[in-house]
Amino acid sequence: MLNRVRSAVAHLVSSGGTSSQRSKSPDLPNATSAPPAAQETPKSSREKPGNQVGAPQKTAETTVSFSRPTFLQLSPGGLRRADDHAGRAVQSPPDTGRRLPWSTGYAEVINAGKSRHNEDQACCEVVYVESRRSRSVTGVSREPSHNQGFCFYYWGLFDGHAGGGAAEMASRLLHRHIREQLKDLVEILRDPLPPPLCLPSTPGTPGVPSPSQLVSPQSCWSPQKEVTHDSLIVGAIENAFHLMDEQMARERRGHQVEGGCCALVVLYLLGKMYVANAGDSRAIIVRNGEIIPMSREFTPETERQRLQLLGFLKPELLGSEFTHLEFPRRVQPKELGQRMLYRDQNMTGWAYKKIEVEDLRFPLVCGEGKKARVMATIGVTRGLGDHNLKVCSSTLSIKPFLSCFPEVRVYDLTQYEHCPDDVLVLGTDGLWDVTNDSEVAATVDRVLSSYEPNDPSRYTALAQALVLGARGIPRDRGWRLPNNKLGSGDDISVFVIPLGGPGSSYS
Amino acid sequence: MLNRVRSAVAHLVSSGGTSSQRSKSPDLPNATSAPPAAQETPKSSREKPGNQVGAPQKTAETTVSFSRPTFLQLSPGGLRRADDHAGRAVQSPPDTGRRLPWSTGYAEVINAGKSRHNEDQACCEVVYVESRRSRSVTGVSREPSHNQGFCFYYWGLFDGHAGGGAAEMASRLLHRHIREQLKDLVEILRDPLPPPLCLPSTPGTPGVPSPSQLVSPQSCWSPQKEVTHDSLIVGAIENAFHLMDEQMARERRGHQVEGGCCALVVLYLLGKMYVANAGDSRAIIVRNGEIIPMSREFTPETERQRLQLLGFLKPELLGSEFTHLEFPRRVQPKELGQRMLYRDQNMTGWAYKKIEVEDLRFPLVCGEGKKARVMATIGVTRGLGDHNLKVCSSTLSIKPFLSCFPEVRVYDLTQYEHCPDDVLVLGTDGLWDVTNDSEVAATVDRVLSSYEPNDPSRYTALAQALVLGARGIPRDRGWRLPNNKLGSGDDISVFVIPLGGPGSSYS
Repeated sequence: MLNRVRSAVAHLVSSGGTSSQRSKSPDLPNATSAPPAAQETPKSSREKPGNQVGAPQKTAETTVSFSRPTFLQLSPGGLRRADDHAGRAVQSPPDTGRRLPWSTGYAEVINAGKSRHNEDQACCEVVYVESRRSRSVTGVSREPSHNQGFCFYYWGLFDGHAGGGAAEMASRLLHRHIREQLKDLVEILRDPLPPPLCLPSTPGTPGVPSPSQLVSPQSCWSPQKEVTHDSLIVGAIENAFHLMDEQMARERRGHQVEGGCCALVVLYLLGKMYVANAGDSRAIIVRNGEIIPMSREFTPETERQRLQLLGFLKPELLGSEFTHLEFPRRVQPKELGQRMLYRDQNMTGWAYKKIEVEDLRFPLVCGEGKKARVMATIGVTRGLGDHNLKVCSSTLSIKPFLSCFPEVRVYDLTQYEHCPDDVLVLGTDGLWDVTNDSEVAATVDRVLSSYEPNDPSRYTALAQALVLGARGIPRDRGWRLPNNKLGSGDDISVFVIPLGGPGSSYS
Repeated sequence: MLNRVRSAVAHLVSSGGTSSQRSKSPDLPNATSAPPAAQETPKSSREKPGNQVGAPQKTAETTVSFSRPTFLQLSPGGLRRADDHAGRAVQSPPDTGRRLPWSTGYAEVINAGKSRHNEDQACCEVVYVESRRSRSVTGVSREPSHNQGFCFYYWGLFDGHAGGGAAEMASRLLHRHIREQLKDLVEILRDPLPPPLCLPSTPGTPGVPSPSQLVSPQSCWSPQKEVTHDSLIVGAIENAFHLMDEQMARERRGHQVEGGCCALVVLYLLGKMYVANAGDSRAIIVRNGEIIPMSREFTPETERQRLQLLGFLKPELLGSEFTHLEFPRRVQPKELGQRMLYRDQNMTGWAYKKIEVEDLRFPLVCGEGKKARVMATIGVTRGLGDHNLKVCSSTLSIKPFLSCFPEVRVYDLTQYEHCPDDVLVLGTDGLWDVTNDSEVAATVDRVLSSYEPNDPSRYTALAQALVLGARGIPRDRGWRLPNNKLGSGDDISVFVIPLGGPGSSYS
């Protein structure tokens, strides 16, 4: 996100020292307690081989400030090219290397002249979920077997702002939080019966019950709601985002988790795609030319009423500097007593009100489009991190207005016969700022129709075409699109996930 | 609404005496200060003739407890039949009388064996809006002229609960509140230029500016938002709902405004339909067989997260009796320490949590479908009134959780060539509880195709068919539908508004 946080970078409050708290989940590495390389080594007894793509690569020459996903397999020279603002090279996993799971296509261009602390990060993994029940009562893991767990496919885009730490940390750890949440559900998701509403005790502790001990819905008195398997997976993803955000809060003082990031992640699990979005990235499915939106953006404009309601109910969060009312422009002192258009937390329309002294405060929400801001600072209202974000020249914290919870949409792959040209496209706002759903669908059609249906490189070629189309080419002192408009100056990251392609193995 | 308020009727707190406060708007009658008949007499100098339909009719034999819209022109015998639970007569305006504006069709069946204080009410009006500028500076009205104002068409359905006063009051006064809000906008809505963001002074007072004094958008510094005429009308409707609710609060002690009501109203103004809904009534357009939803229902289920967020941020509203968490069924004391599925204000999915003592409290939101309730009491979360509504055997007030603000959707009639079979259907939940959009669309097709396109009785016939189809016929000790399922036992009220019919005069 380019310029998502205005003026606030210099006002981030952070202090040294390593957090004394550890992650609640014993399997989750503490981001500040060990070098990243060591953290990313999978525990051989509990992870499937081949899961090591996606961990950001750090080299001696880049240390903290610059890292790219390991699945790009960048050489030191490639890493320099990725970091070269003048060249703005489009990077993809090499043709010669191991392909991404699920024949996924990926391309990115980063570091477009802004702070190098704001880069997008990406993750593409196959994650094995072991049931907590496969452990012995002493807590020591036994050998895993496929009978005791399941795999999910995972894709994530993380668009950082006000520092690179949050995006990098989320790209390394969010899927592990999701895995932790799913560990409790292994037996339940396998059981075709509706999930039990109540379980006898805490999971992963001595004395965990056998399946026959689970309290089945039939044993509870009515009335009761039926809860679906889908909604348990959605709840697991939601809680994983929350726990990821809490871990960032605990470990932010270690200087590795400055700033925040948008997160757009996709899980494939048991026949369905779960698309979870917190921020302003976007996911769409292009199916037989039809566009199916799989996310919506969370910005000061789309979440205005939620933000205003919070400011209205908790005025102490606004200090004496902000008003929860929205005005179409800044009110000026000379306009006191006149009538100005306004909206409050209950309104979608506008009405006139007499300007009073309090209305001279800065509006909680102001601006339009990419210039819309919360407290004149941040242009995105959901995501991970930002625990230190303050209003410029103020002690007011912005975090209470931000939500770390994603909206999750579910797409059932089994309900439709997909062809190799049907894809799920994920992009950060660098893509969507200069293009739209229809143009992306046209590019999908144009690129995929020029490749054989079974050509495994077609999805990477499509991702590259989308990134190139958004970046443009250098001309007339700028990066320009074919229509001569300016291309996106932001980081641009794109996943293309085939829904019916050669590698879409629906495990 | 049948059983929308459970157990709460007996716990309504109301006291005698007439409110000492008057409405803020001088043109709005104080509901308790004059007999209804006198209130409904239009002020000849400011209202167009022919606006008197829609005022509830009161007779000596019905006084306070039972009234029906005057446009039904019910004789004392007709009024008795309408009140007859055994017969459940379907009522419509008589063929021989003056037709409703806009060739509107209407039918209702009321009083289905429940308290007679809960009836639906309806209103259908042509309302003339005079500009405040047409008054002299002394505040005395001058003769109106069409150059100084405009008309809007208005339809309203009000579904009462826990007392008939709110629905009756809203049916008499809400359109007047809307008119008051629009009076400030007459010149602005006529001007094709974007609305001025700032006006020099308060309207309707001496020294009101001429149009040339209006601060035009061009004179303001950028950046600024452009506000549309549409959004001013939406804002006027939203504020009118709020002022109506405030008037009910002021005058509730006069015993005329017990309980509350859902409100679904439609304005036709300057080529567009504005559909405003607060409650669980529903509006759909059926156009060339296609269904276009024009409202959504506001219930404990659809507004769960808003309610939970409020309970979370303001726990004092929950007392020690309720928890903001949702569980799929009531937690039992013996389950302490076990793990139960739950959702909080941030979640759409479900997850397990360890049951603690606080979780034994009653959930703020519980139940499903028509049995969903806020604080175990009310099944609808938006509407007017309910200022006295308390939790059963408690002093906890439910009103803070209810919103009086409607969602307003706009439909541009000029964007489509409508045929006489295209209609906007408004119905209270008595209709929608036993039928769905597709079945209503099928009835629209079946009934209208059996009438000549220019037959003015076709829309009333359609409204009657819809009401009859939802009520059913007496059979097997109940009112039953053709499929032998039980018909709706609730009040059923339906407006059918032709979008391209013989009387749809788009003024």
